Amino acid sequence: MGGPELENLIAQFARLPGLGPRSARRIVLKLLTERDTRLLPLADALRQASAAVRSCSICGNLDTQDPCTICADHSRENRICVVEGVADLWALERAHVYRGGYHVLGGTLSAIAGRGPEDLAIAPLLARVEREHPEEIILALPATVDGAATAHVLTDRLKPFSLPVSRLAQGVPMGGTLEVLDEGTLATALRARSPA
Amino acid sequence: MGGPELENLIAQFARLPGLGPRSARRIVLKLLTERDTRLLPLADALRQASAAVRSCSICGNLDTQDPCTICADHSRENRICVVEGVADLWALERAHVYRGGYHVLGGTLSAIAGRGPEDLAIAPLLARVEREHPEEIILALPATVDGAATAHVLTDRLKPFSLPVSRLAQGVPMGGTLEVLDEGTLATALRARSPA
Repeated sequence: MGGPELENLIAQFARLPGLGPRSARRIVLKLLTERDTRLLPLADALRQASAAVRSCSICGNLDTQDPCTICADHSRENRICVVEGVADLWALERAHVYRGGYHVLGGTLSAIAGRGPEDLAIAPLLARVEREHPEEIILALPATVDGAATAHVLTDRLKPFSLPVSRLAQGVPMGGTLEVLDEGTLATALRARSPA
Repeated sequence: MGGPELENLIAQFARLPGLGPRSARRIVLKLLTERDTRLLPLADALRQASAAVRSCSICGNLDTQDPCTICADHSRENRICVVEGVADLWALERAHVYRGGYHVLGGTLSAIAGRGPEDLAIAPLLARVEREHPEEIILALPATVDGAATAHVLTDRLKPFSLPVSRLAQGVPMGGTLEVLDEGTLATALRARSPA
C-alpha cells in the first residue's frame, strides 16, 4: 500500500517498543495528514535530540550536557543509586524522593543473554566509589532472578570498601489488589510485614 | 530531565495516537540508545515519506504516485467504495475482498464538530459518479450516528444518478463473544438474522 517510502516509515514505527504494524499504520496516517504540525516537527526533534543528547561519562544518564545535570549538581547527596537503565533513573527522579547520584549499569547479568560482569558498567562503578567515597550505595535493580544475581555480585565486589549497601524494599505495590499479585510478591510482602 | 531537545522529542511522540508520556519516554530511550540503527533510519524515513507521499487527486488515498496505485489500476472493477478516511481504505484492501475503487470523504458529518456536507469530499464524489458511471456505490462508513447521518445524506444526493447504493452489513464481529457486545450490535444482529 502506498509505495516503498510509506512501507518503510510504517516498518520503522512498528519496530518501536510497544508498537506493532497496526498502531504504526495509525500513527503514520496521522503524521501524513498533519505534515506541517506533526510530521516535520517530529523529524526535526529527532535530528536535534540525536545531535544534542549524549551519555554522561560519569553515571551513564542521557543528557544534553556531560557531566549530566544530576552529576553536575553538587548540592545533591553523596550517595550512588545503581539502576539497570536510564528509564529507571528517570522513573526514580519523577518520584522526587531521592536526592543523590546514580549509576547506570546498562543491563543485568544474564546467563541466557550471555551478559557477564564485564558487559556491565561495574568497573566504572568501583572506580567511582574509590574516587567519590559515597556515604551509601543503593541497589535499585529489578526484582527478577537476573536482578537479584546482579545485586549479589555487586554486594560482593563492594565489600572491600566497607560502606553501607542497601536495596529497595519489596512488597505489594501501591493500589495493588492482592488477588492479581503473583505468589512471589505476596510471599515477600508477608515475610517483610511490619506492625500496623 | 535531560535538556529541552529530549523533552521536545518526548512531547512529539506523546502527541501521537495511542501514545502517552510514559510510552513516549520508553520509545525515545530506545531510539537514543540505538541511534544508528533506529533513530537515524526513522528520521530519514519521515523525511522521505514526507517528500514522496501525496493525496490522490481522484480518490484521496495517500500514495507516492498521483493518481494512486488503485486509481491507476484499470483492471479494477468500476465501483466506488466510500470511506471516512485513508485508514479504512487500507483496512479494506488488507481484507482482499474488494477489487473496485475508493473515495475518501475525509470525515463524517458532525453537528458537534461542526462538519457540514461542504467540509467533506461529497462534491468530488458526485463529479466522479457523473464522469465514471460506476456500477455501484458502496457506503463503508462507521456504524455510528454520524456515520449513519452521512450515509443518509449521500444516498439522497446519489438518487438522481439512479445507480445501486449499498452499505456494509452490521452484526456480530468475527470472534466476538456476545456478552461483551453492546445492546445496539446485538439488536441489529438479531433483526438481521439469516437461516442457519
